[in-house]
Amino acid sequence: MAPSKKASSKKRAPRRSAAKKSPAKKKARTKKQPKYVYFFGGGAAEGNTGLRNLLGGKGANLAEMAGLGLPVPPGFTITTEVCNLSDPATDRYPKALAKQVEASLARLEEVMGKGFGDPKDPLLVSVRSGARASMPGMMDTVLNLGLNDRTVKGLALASGNERFAWDSYRRFIQMYGDVVMGLKPESAKAADPFEAVIERKKEQVGVEQDTDLTTAHLQELVREFKTLIRRKCKRSFPTDPREQLWGAIGAVFSSWTNERAEVYRKLNNIPASWGTAVNVQAMVFGNLGTDSATGVAFTRDPATGEHRFFGEFLVNAQGEDVVAGIRTPQQITREASKTWARENGVKEAERKRGFPSLEELMPECFGQLIDVAGKLERHYRDMQDLEFTIERDRLWMLQTRNGKRTATAAVRIAVEMVAERRITRNEAVLRVDPDQIDQLLHPMIDTRAPKTLLAKGLGASPGAASGMVVFSADDAVAAVADGHEVLLARIETSPEDISGMVAANGILTARGGRTSHAAVVARGMGTTCVAGCEALRIDYAGDRMSVGDSVIKRGDWLTIDGTSGEIFLGTVPTKQATVSADFSKLMGWADRVRKLGVRTNADTPRDSKVAREFGAAGIGLCRTEHMFFEGDRIDAVREMILAEDEDGRRKALAKLLPYQRRDFAGIFKVMDGLPVTVRLLDPPLHEFLPHTDAEYQAVARKAGVDVDTLKATGAKLHESNPMLGHRGCRLAITYPEIYAMQARAIIEAALQVAAKGVKVLPEIMIPLVGTASELERLRALVKETAEAVFAKKKKKIAYKIGTMIEVPRAALTADEIARHADFFSFGTNDLTQMGFGLSRDDAGRFLPDYVDSGVLPDDPFASLDGEGIGQLIEIAVQKGRATDAKLKLGICGEHGGDPRSIDFCHKVGLDYVSCSPYRVPVARLAAAHAALKES
Amino acid sequence: MAPSKKASSKKRAPRRSAAKKSPAKKKARTKKQPKYVYFFGGGAAEGNTGLRNLLGGKGANLAEMAGLGLPVPPGFTITTEVCNLSDPATDRYPKALAKQVEASLARLEEVMGKGFGDPKDPLLVSVRSGARASMPGMMDTVLNLGLNDRTVKGLALASGNERFAWDSYRRFIQMYGDVVMGLKPESAKAADPFEAVIERKKEQVGVEQDTDLTTAHLQELVREFKTLIRRKCKRSFPTDPREQLWGAIGAVFSSWTNERAEVYRKLNNIPASWGTAVNVQAMVFGNLGTDSATGVAFTRDPATGEHRFFGEFLVNAQGEDVVAGIRTPQQITREASKTWARENGVKEAERKRGFPSLEELMPECFGQLIDVAGKLERHYRDMQDLEFTIERDRLWMLQTRNGKRTATAAVRIAVEMVAERRITRNEAVLRVDPDQIDQLLHPMIDTRAPKTLLAKGLGASPGAASGMVVFSADDAVAAVADGHEVLLARIETSPEDISGMVAANGILTARGGRTSHAAVVARGMGTTCVAGCEALRIDYAGDRMSVGDSVIKRGDWLTIDGTSGEIFLGTVPTKQATVSADFSKLMGWADRVRKLGVRTNADTPRDSKVAREFGAAGIGLCRTEHMFFEGDRIDAVREMILAEDEDGRRKALAKLLPYQRRDFAGIFKVMDGLPVTVRLLDPPLHEFLPHTDAEYQAVARKAGVDVDTLKATGAKLHESNPMLGHRGCRLAITYPEIYAMQARAIIEAALQVAAKGVKVLPEIMIPLVGTASELERLRALVKETAEAVFAKKKKKIAYKIGTMIEVPRAALTADEIARHADFFSFGTNDLTQMGFGLSRDDAGRFLPDYVDSGVLPDDPFASLDGEGIGQLIEIAVQKGRATDAKLKLGICGEHGGDPRSIDFCHKVGLDYVSCSPYRVPVARLAAAHAALKES
Repeated sequence: MAPSKKASSKKRAPRRSAAKKSPAKKKARTKKQPKYVYFFGGGAAEGNTGLRNLLGGKGANLAEMAGLGLPVPPGFTITTEVCNLSDPATDRYPKALAKQVEASLARLEEVMGKGFGDPKDPLLVSVRSGARASMPGMMDTVLNLGLNDRTVKGLALASGNERFAWDSYRRFIQMYGDVVMGLKPESAKAADPFEAVIERKKEQVGVEQDTDLTTAHLQELVREFKTLIRRKCKRSFPTDPREQLWGAIGAVFSSWTNERAEVYRKLNNIPASWGTAVNVQAMVFGNLGTDSATGVAFTRDPATGEHRFFGEFLVNAQGEDVVAGIRTPQQITREASKTWARENGVKEAERKRGFPSLEELMPECFGQLIDVAGKLERHYRDMQDLEFTIERDRLWMLQTRNGKRTATAAVRIAVEMVAERRITRNEAVLRVDPDQIDQLLHPMIDTRAPKTLLAKGLGASPGAASGMVVFSADDAVAAVADGHEVLLARIETSPEDISGMVAANGILTARGGRTSHAAVVARGMGTTCVAGCEALRIDYAGDRMSVGDSVIKRGDWLTIDGTSGEIFLGTVPTKQATVSADFSKLMGWADRVRKLGVRTNADTPRDSKVAREFGAAGIGLCRTEHMFFEGDRIDAVREMILAEDEDGRRKALAKLLPYQRRDFAGIFKVMDGLPVTVRLLDPPLHEFLPHTDAEYQAVARKAGVDVDTLKATGAKLHESNPMLGHRGCRLAITYPEIYAMQARAIIEAALQVAAKGVKVLPEIMIPLVGTASELERLRALVKETAEAVFAKKKKKIAYKIGTMIEVPRAALTADEIARHADFFSFGTNDLTQMGFGLSRDDAGRFLPDYVDSGVLPDDPFASLDGEGIGQLIEIAVQKGRATDAKLKLGICGEHGGDPRSIDFCHKVGLDYVSCSPYRVPVARLAAAHAALKES
Repeated sequence: MAPSKKASSKKRAPRRSAAKKSPAKKKARTKKQPKYVYFFGGGAAEGNTGLRNLLGGKGANLAEMAGLGLPVPPGFTITTEVCNLSDPATDRYPKALAKQVEASLARLEEVMGKGFGDPKDPLLVSVRSGARASMPGMMDTVLNLGLNDRTVKGLALASGNERFAWDSYRRFIQMYGDVVMGLKPESAKAADPFEAVIERKKEQVGVEQDTDLTTAHLQELVREFKTLIRRKCKRSFPTDPREQLWGAIGAVFSSWTNERAEVYRKLNNIPASWGTAVNVQAMVFGNLGTDSATGVAFTRDPATGEHRFFGEFLVNAQGEDVVAGIRTPQQITREASKTWARENGVKEAERKRGFPSLEELMPECFGQLIDVAGKLERHYRDMQDLEFTIERDRLWMLQTRNGKRTATAAVRIAVEMVAERRITRNEAVLRVDPDQIDQLLHPMIDTRAPKTLLAKGLGASPGAASGMVVFSADDAVAAVADGHEVLLARIETSPEDISGMVAANGILTARGGRTSHAAVVARGMGTTCVAGCEALRIDYAGDRMSVGDSVIKRGDWLTIDGTSGEIFLGTVPTKQATVSADFSKLMGWADRVRKLGVRTNADTPRDSKVAREFGAAGIGLCRTEHMFFEGDRIDAVREMILAEDEDGRRKALAKLLPYQRRDFAGIFKVMDGLPVTVRLLDPPLHEFLPHTDAEYQAVARKAGVDVDTLKATGAKLHESNPMLGHRGCRLAITYPEIYAMQARAIIEAALQVAAKGVKVLPEIMIPLVGTASELERLRALVKETAEAVFAKKKKKIAYKIGTMIEVPRAALTADEIARHADFFSFGTNDLTQMGFGLSRDDAGRFLPDYVDSGVLPDDPFASLDGEGIGQLIEIAVQKGRATDAKLKLGICGEHGGDPRSIDFCHKVGLDYVSCSPYRVPVARLAAAHAALKES
């Protein structure tokens, strides 16, 4: 205040006005007490969803529903702020809290027409925690609070059900003893102490089920529970409802700082300062007789999206009974009830008697429920998942939330809600999770079908596939030729397995992660793949594999789920994918808002065609090495590698040229009018070498060389770390003739196809560039080659030359590299491998541990590591564009199909992402999400 | 001009003053002509070394000498500026040039007392290029310019030597025809056309030597040369001296843009805009008779550094004769002459008659030379390398430059010049090249000894060593035990070879670069090593190796030079290293100015002791994995790796604990009072696995396990890219017990040694950290372990926990990582491997090509890549210090001993570098250079 006074005297502010302000402030301060408790219910609420930070998620939602005038059991929420101001261990709370809780409790009694601790008709409450974000590890719930030896009698009287009352009391003590008084099992392996008492009782009285215990037994249990607590906790179970309430409030606040909650917060970056709220709510019972019930419902069908009310309920039951599935639940609408009866062979008379719908049984409550559901859907502007209880013909809404749904339902609901003018098109786009729509593009395992799990690997390429197991590519091709459906199982795949991979329904490997050869190729082809199932022991020689004691022989049938990574014995029914009109409509809306282009990674005309149909705007990565394995080409490739000198290499390359030209021509034709980025040869040469003696002999015979010489040459190509070895553009610095051949094949193919009226936009991409001078030289080589072709053919065509940014050093020196590039394409697989110092082929042994234990939030090969590797991309974008503002920037790593990575790409301002054909729709939608979230 | 006029009228500038300025400007323009030509000689010069950019290196130095009043053949320099303003192809030069050249030529005639083109006593000149930096590939020299059929007679007359005159003329036409008129060999394999004519002539007249050709023969040659030029160049040889001069000037300027010069400029980043100067200088001749001579001299002995004038000369000879070594040169001083005679068994009388010193022969010129030499040394303040010619008793200085010298001489000269008060101590420090002093610390090959080169590899650890070749560590140990000296030759070494490497005099490998296992270990031990000699084919089974057709069997002797990488047959004499008092003095001065601390990489007490003696201020990297191989430990290590579960691992680790504790205690003792940074286990576990069946059987026997099970476990540990695999801190995330054992051993050893009064400063370093959470967890593990030891022993000790920054991602997220680190140590080997995507084990196949062809300026494993990898270091320094301003920063990669890398470390503000023991003095000196160069 001192400096402010000084300032005001200097400024000669009018004294009077200053004097006036001061008492006014004081008055306000004494008048306005901090509000710690928010009441809801009775047709109104002090809070709403806008106060989520203060009331927690649960409290805010309850307030919102109550505020809408819906029949919510009334109650009140103690704010998250109180959590920070309190020390429950020493019973210290903000001064004003007790009074406000007391006032709210009084109001609750008034609304409910019952008294808290009233021995005649006691008000019972539940006490629940509720933080801003859902947080497992915190204290969850204490129900039936307010019961004691006196009020239990009142409850028995009021409910007319003595056993119900004593069972409620027994449950209350058990819950309270556990979560509030801390009477827990003594070790992870020990039994729950209360359950032990119950078990002993059942043995003693000779019954099997809890439900067989009589009221008298329950009364004994209550006594024994209280004795147990006194003995173990060194204090008595509190009989005063108010003491019970404060105990529960304190337990909720304390649970915010318990160990499990702290671990969870740390893992999920939730600040401790958020705190938790406490919700105290009047109990309602669906198990007070045949005029009571409890159920769950959806405002639309969560499986199909169809706009019809859908739900199940149980008469005279508690919420958990519906979930537990002990009794067969009944349908809410008459129509659904009839359908159910038809499907289950239940006659109409039997149905009406035994399984009537709520619509028939309690038409008034049903009407009210339909009304509430409509209100809630309109209010939240999304399909709702509701929980309700009917206590003595009175409907109470316990919860509402946006309902989970299948991909099919998500699309249909979003599109229909636009038609109903409930939401905008952009909102509809945001309503569908990009990751989820992958389901729509692949067949899926029928989740309801019975199945036996054999093992679990990594879901590497989505879909579901069944087939006879074979262990070699040749067997796969032969079996398919014989009309069989096969699954190809390999320890790991290599490019030689391509023919078998193409033939197989699905692929299964024992080693390798989501970016292993098998995974990448399978995703490219849209073939289901489970990779890295370490439990498999594959014995090629024995044509069999084992998992523990189970042995799978060649010809045995398995089914794999490429999304979950599960492997099932035999055949499991699958559901085919269908792309609906709704889906197309939604994707059109997505395309209109996205900024990022979506290209595809495709190496064949077939893949290119699929991708184009899925909406790819070009090819962002056409790998040429896969082409080197087909048919007889591999012989020429091996001849080239094992050649003694440049002449020998050139001779072998000349044999490859026509093949390559044909490859490119085929792709250019399919991609008429769209750009095609061709990456020149990337892998180390030894990947193409023969593996077996027989193969070596064959190559030696064809090349007319001595086998031993050949093997020696092969051995010299061995590398300790091939990932960091002689590959990519390094091959072309040493053997320029390789890239010269490829460049020639591209340009010749382009001219050839262009002559037929096809619009060809070739982009030649140099991989693994680490220094500007590499690119400078190879750009000159490609240009020279192209010019020579143009001169010879007397025709020209426009083309671009660019580079992958996949070596960290390239990202760091992108300003220099950009001088020689028309475009950059981020190879985020290698960038992640090198930036993280993590080989994707080897990481399978420890990376899952890293993710499970929270050392890493995600597998960085599945979702781009924005914090670390992302910096390299940002540096390269900034430096590249500083040199050339028009530099075209894309990403062609596996991350190009991952929604979170796409969001990153959008944020750093890339021009496009490129992903496998079947991920193209996912990427389109994710790109739209990124654009919409930004604005 | 228009906008400027408009502006002035708007501003209403006074017309009068503007009008006044304009003519003044014009006047200045007409008055002050640009100066294109700088004259030197006759006791004065218009230029000096300060004008190096304008006059080029050679021109500036000649001017400087002339300016000192020294007898330099006079001449003039046409500036580099003219190069940019001219187009020699079309004979276009700046307008004022011709006039200025003419004026300088006149002055030259005046000073020399001869006329250019004077048929009586012609002035002859040389024309030379001279850029700012020395530039091979440009036109070098045309001598004797000014000769034609008339002036040749004048020269004959004036020299009294007709043959000399015609030989000079013949040489002039030959040189001019080549470099100015472009008459060169028709292909790289073809003979020089002029030499072909001479050969034909010698055959024709039946003589062997050029010197046997008579005056008449030379006259014929001149005619034939001119005919040749007319025929081939389609124009006549110019007879007008002025035309000759302009032709030569044009040729110099043109040569600036010829292809070879452009390639060189590109490689060395020399901008084309620098241009070259042209030096035109009067010819002087040392071959005009017995009163003429030519020689070279050093102001101090370049081999020993002794302060005595030293040089050689030839009477009646040209400069090239001294270099060519056809005649035995004579000593300049009488003393040296006598010594020479004594050493060569030449009697005094014979010496005086046949090989007198210059001091005796031409005492006046000698006195003048001594005088000039003293002046030059005082002027340039460094030992000078002089070239002089005596033409008819007149001394001419042709060149002076700082003389090249051995390391011994460099140190002595620097220290003595400080004593003579010629230079400061800091200057003395800068006078000695850090790389060079490596010589002083290792034995060296006697360069004058005869030797036969077998092959050449990479100089991986300096020094020279001879020995009998053996091909296995066991053979090495056995042979040394028998009293032999051995060289261990391996395809590549692995940690199992350690015993043999320790025993051997030198190590030789066929694979691997300067940072291969062999190289790193050898440098650490100060053992000579030649690595990656790809020409070697080592046949372990045959106990032999071959290079081409040469076969080396076990027991054959070889000598290797670990600096040059050369391998010689048999034994070659070597010279032992001696560290002089001068050296110690110089290092003391270096230590006083350097900012960087210098630590060492040492894994044993022996290495630690050596390093401490060499001035290391602590251990920056103590690798613990080498310790795992000694004696029986490897068994326990293998037992640990192959254990089925944590219990098994803990049991094996318990066996290792006492060994590790002893290792650390030994090192701590030696490093009393200095910090010791211990890196916890880093390599992938499979590096410790058995290799042979026999080893597997031994391990299985000891562990009581089935061999096949053991092998299967081993096979599971195989990695595709071990560099990027399960290693470093990743091992400890999976198996925390490993680091726990190591931390315990360190802390227990520290307490144990400290109890004996030794000051222990342990720093525990976690390798391969890529994410902050890794370090956070492992820091907690180490701390917990240390606290447990403290509690048990009831004693405490201070220690630090830090991390390597060697994964690019760690550098990028250094701010987060610094939260858990007391220090960072840059592991630049791995940082380079990952940042460049370059495996050092595999790069040998293509990296040399990269460096040779200029794609990379240097091997990034030898000299830190400041442009790329350096950015990662800078980012980490900046981010790390932003989190913790006191964070200690060092480097422990191989680059820590490389002067250029040390300069980088100084610039980015690291606290210390750490290098192998024998590089410590090099690093100390390099650190001083870095500090001095900065200020």
